[in-house]
Amino acid sequence: MPILVHMLGSHSTKDIQQNINSSTSVALTTTSPATTSVELQPLMAQTDLPSEHDNTQEDRKEKEPVQPRLQRARACLLKGVSYFSGDMEVFGKWMEKQFFLLQLLDWVLRGAAQVMFVNNPLSGLIIFAGLILQNYWWALNGFVGTLFATISALILQQNRGAIAAGLYGYNGILVGLLMAVFSKAGNWYWWLLLPNIFMSMMCPVVSSALASINSRWDLPVFTLPFNILVCLHMVATGHFNHHFPQVLIQPRSELPNITWSEIDVPKLFMSVPVGIGQVYGCDNPWTGGIFIISLFISSPITCAHAVLGSAVGMVSGLALAAPFGDIYFGLWGYNCVLACIAIGGMFYALTWQVHLLAITCAFFCAYLSSAIANIMSAFGLPACTWPFCLSALTFLLLTTGTKRIFKLPLAKVTYPEKNLRFFWKLKKQEKMEKAEKERKEREEQQKVTEEEIILNEKEKLRIEIERMEKGGVASEASEGKNGETHGKDQAPGVEQQSTEEEVLTDYV
Amino acid sequence: MPILVHMLGSHSTKDIQQNINSSTSVALTTTSPATTSVELQPLMAQTDLPSEHDNTQEDRKEKEPVQPRLQRARACLLKGVSYFSGDMEVFGKWMEKQFFLLQLLDWVLRGAAQVMFVNNPLSGLIIFAGLILQNYWWALNGFVGTLFATISALILQQNRGAIAAGLYGYNGILVGLLMAVFSKAGNWYWWLLLPNIFMSMMCPVVSSALASINSRWDLPVFTLPFNILVCLHMVATGHFNHHFPQVLIQPRSELPNITWSEIDVPKLFMSVPVGIGQVYGCDNPWTGGIFIISLFISSPITCAHAVLGSAVGMVSGLALAAPFGDIYFGLWGYNCVLACIAIGGMFYALTWQVHLLAITCAFFCAYLSSAIANIMSAFGLPACTWPFCLSALTFLLLTTGTKRIFKLPLAKVTYPEKNLRFFWKLKKQEKMEKAEKERKEREEQQKVTEEEIILNEKEKLRIEIERMEKGGVASEASEGKNGETHGKDQAPGVEQQSTEEEVLTDYV
Amino acid sequence: MPILVHMLGSHSTKDIQQNINSSTSVALTTTSPATTSVELQPLMAQTDLPSEHDNTQEDRKEKEPVQPRLQRARACLLKGVSYFSGDMEVFGKWMEKQFFLLQLLDWVLRGAAQVMFVNNPLSGLIIFAGLILQNYWWALNGFVGTLFATISALILQQNRGAIAAGLYGYNGILVGLLMAVFSKAGNWYWWLLLPNIFMSMMCPVVSSALASINSRWDLPVFTLPFNILVCLHMVATGHFNHHFPQVLIQPRSELPNITWSEIDVPKLFMSVPVGIGQVYGCDNPWTGGIFIISLFISSPITCAHAVLGSAVGMVSGLALAAPFGDIYFGLWGYNCVLACIAIGGMFYALTWQVHLLAITCAFFCAYLSSAIANIMSAFGLPACTWPFCLSALTFLLLTTGTKRIFKLPLAKVTYPEKNLRFFWKLKKQEKMEKAEKERKEREEQQKVTEEEIILNEKEKLRIEIERMEKGGVASEASEGKNGETHGKDQAPGVEQQSTEEEVLTDYV
Repeated sequence: MPILVHMLGSHSTKDIQQNINSSTSVALTTTSPATTSVELQPLMAQTDLPSEHDNTQEDRKEKEPVQPRLQRARACLLKGVSYFSGDMEVFGKWMEKQFFLLQLLDWVLRGAAQVMFVNNPLSGLIIFAGLILQNYWWALNGFVGTLFATISALILQQNRGAIAAGLYGYNGILVGLLMAVFSKAGNWYWWLLLPNIFMSMMCPVVSSALASINSRWDLPVFTLPFNILVCLHMVATGHFNHHFPQVLIQPRSELPNITWSEIDVPKLFMSVPVGIGQVYGCDNPWTGGIFIISLFISSPITCAHAVLGSAVGMVSGLALAAPFGDIYFGLWGYNCVLACIAIGGMFYALTWQVHLLAITCAFFCAYLSSAIANIMSAFGLPACTWPFCLSALTFLLLTTGTKRIFKLPLAKVTYPEKNLRFFWKLKKQEKMEKAEKERKEREEQQKVTEEEIILNEKEKLRIEIERMEKGGVASEASEGKNGETHGKDQAPGVEQQSTEEEVLTDYV
Repeated sequence: MPILVHMLGSHSTKDIQQNINSSTSVALTTTSPATTSVELQPLMAQTDLPSEHDNTQEDRKEKEPVQPRLQRARACLLKGVSYFSGDMEVFGKWMEKQFFLLQLLDWVLRGAAQVMFVNNPLSGLIIFAGLILQNYWWALNGFVGTLFATISALILQQNRGAIAAGLYGYNGILVGLLMAVFSKAGNWYWWLLLPNIFMSMMCPVVSSALASINSRWDLPVFTLPFNILVCLHMVATGHFNHHFPQVLIQPRSELPNITWSEIDVPKLFMSVPVGIGQVYGCDNPWTGGIFIISLFISSPITCAHAVLGSAVGMVSGLALAAPFGDIYFGLWGYNCVLACIAIGGMFYALTWQVHLLAITCAFFCAYLSSAIANIMSAFGLPACTWPFCLSALTFLLLTTGTKRIFKLPLAKVTYPEKNLRFFWKLKKQEKMEKAEKERKEREEQQKVTEEEIILNEKEKLRIEIERMEKGGVASEASEGKNGETHGKDQAPGVEQQSTEEEVLTDYV
Repeated sequence: MPILVHMLGSHSTKDIQQNINSSTSVALTTTSPATTSVELQPLMAQTDLPSEHDNTQEDRKEKEPVQPRLQRARACLLKGVSYFSGDMEVFGKWMEKQFFLLQLLDWVLRGAAQVMFVNNPLSGLIIFAGLILQNYWWALNGFVGTLFATISALILQQNRGAIAAGLYGYNGILVGLLMAVFSKAGNWYWWLLLPNIFMSMMCPVVSSALASINSRWDLPVFTLPFNILVCLHMVATGHFNHHFPQVLIQPRSELPNITWSEIDVPKLFMSVPVGIGQVYGCDNPWTGGIFIISLFISSPITCAHAVLGSAVGMVSGLALAAPFGDIYFGLWGYNCVLACIAIGGMFYALTWQVHLLAITCAFFCAYLSSAIANIMSAFGLPACTWPFCLSALTFLLLTTGTKRIFKLPLAKVTYPEKNLRFFWKLKKQEKMEKAEKERKEREEQQKVTEEEIILNEKEKLRIEIERMEKGGVASEASEGKNGETHGKDQAPGVEQQSTEEEVLTDYV
């Protein structure tokens, strides 16, 4: 059935285009307006995408080339956007033929963005800009970490596609950054680069080992290698060390002073971008804002869930009576940001149920981050992103009976918008297969019914013939050939002309 | 072979009935008399089951209908007992057609009992009675926990059979109860219901996630979700919290004052029911006694192992020089109770070897509970039921070469008596298959022997014929047609003439 | 092709013999001369093996029986060495027919050596000698531990081959030894034997349980059961216990006093054998030296990596500013020793890449041991061999694209030299298969070419014949049989006798 296949093909192409539009609108509607309006407004004004999208959608419905010039401009813009949004696939392919060092830079930049599940070198570049805005020394350490983690993965001959997607770099940037952040030796203590390089180069080893385990459940390793290695370095050296001393972290031993009247509302709102910045250990709200932009460029759904997660973390902090300082500092936000992104569209296909699940996961993650921070402080350690890893893994291991919570196969995960298209295509295909099956069943049913009718009629006919022949034998014994013809005429509603038997076998 | 199948059927039916009797007697004999006599005596007097059982067994051996009236009464009683013992399957099936809220109540009650691996709403009801006897507020929290955990499982569309068996409720009741027990805010602090409901609703999520991992080794999740969630709540808030403060738990920092002359023997014996009560966080010995009754109703084997486990825990506490207060308070017992139940007949089919294994596991669990309590106290946490989970999982992961330690497939686990019946049926089937195989082998052997005999006789016959024909050739040389026969005889290794052929084929 | 098979056989036999020589030389070259010269020199002088090996190798190349008497002596010596080196397979097989208690002694001795991955009763005997040199009481506890662990494995009907290889004993000896080492009750406190026996008997249970998990990734359990059980005992009783008090271990709470000018270089070098002794908890350098001998007897590669690992640990301790006392005491060495042995030739086939990997793993392990020691000290626990287990498992879970890092299937692991032979045989086989495949391909290619040539010739022939026949028909119409013969004669290099068509179909 080549026609059917062709129809399926054309359907799915159109389907994907519609998905692009609608998924973007979904991303914008999923965020609560209160929290996103501040950050997204300038972006919207700048790119003017959302309003255009709506128009395009309406145009598509009308299917009339009213304003061809405007439409062409829009198509151009969309194509332009597709070049630097998403995972920049075209750029990645072009890169493959370039000079090795340029490729390495691409991988490092993608690695920097992969912390937020973004496979986009432009986002990576913007993130590095944010880091430089925060602290030169930290940014340098982050770059060194990403670079050596990627090099180590190359030496260990890991999967080239994964390296090119920055999947071996993101743990490196976090290791580099956070080792600098938690070092008590201060900035520009050059010896720190030594353990930094060693730990970054261990990243692919630990990643590969964890992947061997997690792949059994089709789970990603998240930032577990970073958590393990930074905690390893910090607890191995500790606060009381001559070479690599760490900042002092101690467990809480008295009631924190919380006066609700003293709450600083602007700071509370500021904690949302700060929470996003804290994913990279940065407490500068501008840095956080820059990170939001970098997310929006690649995937608006990711960006929305990041902001939502940070807000959920802030609310949880208030609910669990955390000291205000911790909340302002974004410590309640960064794990929720990552957990909310991971569940909300990245590893699950985004539906309303999944969106609610992502919010639940963010609340659970906030609880967990408080718990883990308290436990780790007993060893002088920060919480790192353990809470995110554990909560996201828990929610990814969840099995439900509903089809609306669809976990993507790990190999198919790209970015929320593309994941959605994959999910929709899959659903459409299923629906089509079901429709096809139903059609066939209906046809078969019809055939069976028809056959039954024919069989009944045949039966009736035979009885009539028998009856008539019996009569014919008695009255018209002399006429041999007329009996048959006579019998046929008396069977009403049957259209046979030639011998009965032949016709019936044709039907059957 | 329909006759054989029928025999198998009738055999197994009888087998099951015998199992009911013998399994009960096994359960009663497995407990050391010293510890069980106190608790079981009243129960025995009340139901008068054991003595009757013995009689029935003897009657069965005699197989004579001496006292038909008494026997009928016994049958009636047994049938009546079967309605509310075990997992109350009949009641469960009847419930399926009832009003939803009534069903939910059934699930909640079963969930309450499932903490002790008992799938029985009547036991659940009695357990709630025990909880009310202990503390109204705790009982309320427990009920809320079970209810919301079950509702959450319904929302997440978990397996309906598992929900109906209370497998999503038992973590909920523990979460609810223990959050109330360890709260420093005192009774009737209504805000506590908020985290209680949130954590209960997280139970099915964590259960489902852990089941995804544990199912790879065909292991249950036990009370791991409860352990994780309660520890999560307690350490996330901690002792120094404005909203949800926890009781202060601190590590031991000096030698406990243990004077062996000051030991209080009645309190030591009382610690056995208290230990069973501590499974639900209750220190009232009467509550513990009520729990024992609820266990006995459903499964005497479970009940016996619970008492045994508690006794083992108490002895271990003395051996490891624990403060007497902890032993009296049942802290050494509750984990051993659960571990002993789990290994002794619940997940392994109960044999003498398994019974010894269960006692070993209880000792190991006692050791482990001391260790974990010391570690957890460093974070201000109680041991919860981590020791039980870890020791039981270790002993369930054990692989041995002996067939007497038979781990049931997880899907076949019900309650010890039924598990035993399953094991015996399996063994009988194996034996029968083996016997069948042996019979066939024997038959074949016989056939081969017979054939050999026939062949020997045939050989003898041939020699005789040859001998005779040779004599015949000499005497009857004048006959021409005999030449052919002669030729045949001279071909050695070629068989027989006409008459022989027929006879031999008849034999074969 | 029996000839090919025979060639393969003879090749591999020679191959193995060469491996013996070259592997020994590899083992000697892998160690940095600075560290090994001290320990290995006396051994070399004693056995005079290396120099002879070199000669044998050279002789083999010459393949001339110049000195038959000397060569025979060498062969004798090599055979003699093979009886007590490696895993003493011949001795093990001979043991199978001996008295049970003698067998048990063999298993216990092998168990003692298996801590270092050595399956050799002679090494075990020497190790026990070293332990007795250190402390009688510790040695007794170690022996009791090994014995009861092995007995427990027999009771639990574990795999007989694994028991005979000492794989159930090595955790027992460590449990016994370290429980004695860390007991505060002092030597000859006989009550200690009670928990010692209980914990040793739990070893096979925990081993079996862990093996159920680890076997999914084809990983060994290493000394995890020992780590779990000793930590269990120590934390369950703790420093403040009346029956089984433990030595006091506390976390560091101030800057250690490190003055680089005070460094004691001889002690620093001594720390290398001390580090090897610390695998069994012994701080006597002579004991460490005896252990090195026991390793060398069985496997020089293992011995070299042990020394290398200890040196790496010492260097790491200096790099991370550890107190000199800890380094002198060998606390930085023992985990690295084990990790370096495990990766360097035991579970990976030894290549240069694997050798570098082993050194990396040793460094990682040193880092990890500092981290774990700091964490465990918060609970009053020593680091045990957790760092080794975790780092070695991480490096064994690593997956790479290079074929030079070849992880042996767990069932094929014996000792580094034999592992290497296995790896080489596998490689040779692969190469041969590849060559065979190539040969076949070449042959096929040739056949195709030949066929093409023949086809071309046939075509030519046919054209010629056609041409000739056409001519022949016209000019020589009277001669019927000559036409064909004529045509044949003009086709050079073709051997047809009968009609062309037949021959050609034979070829095709």
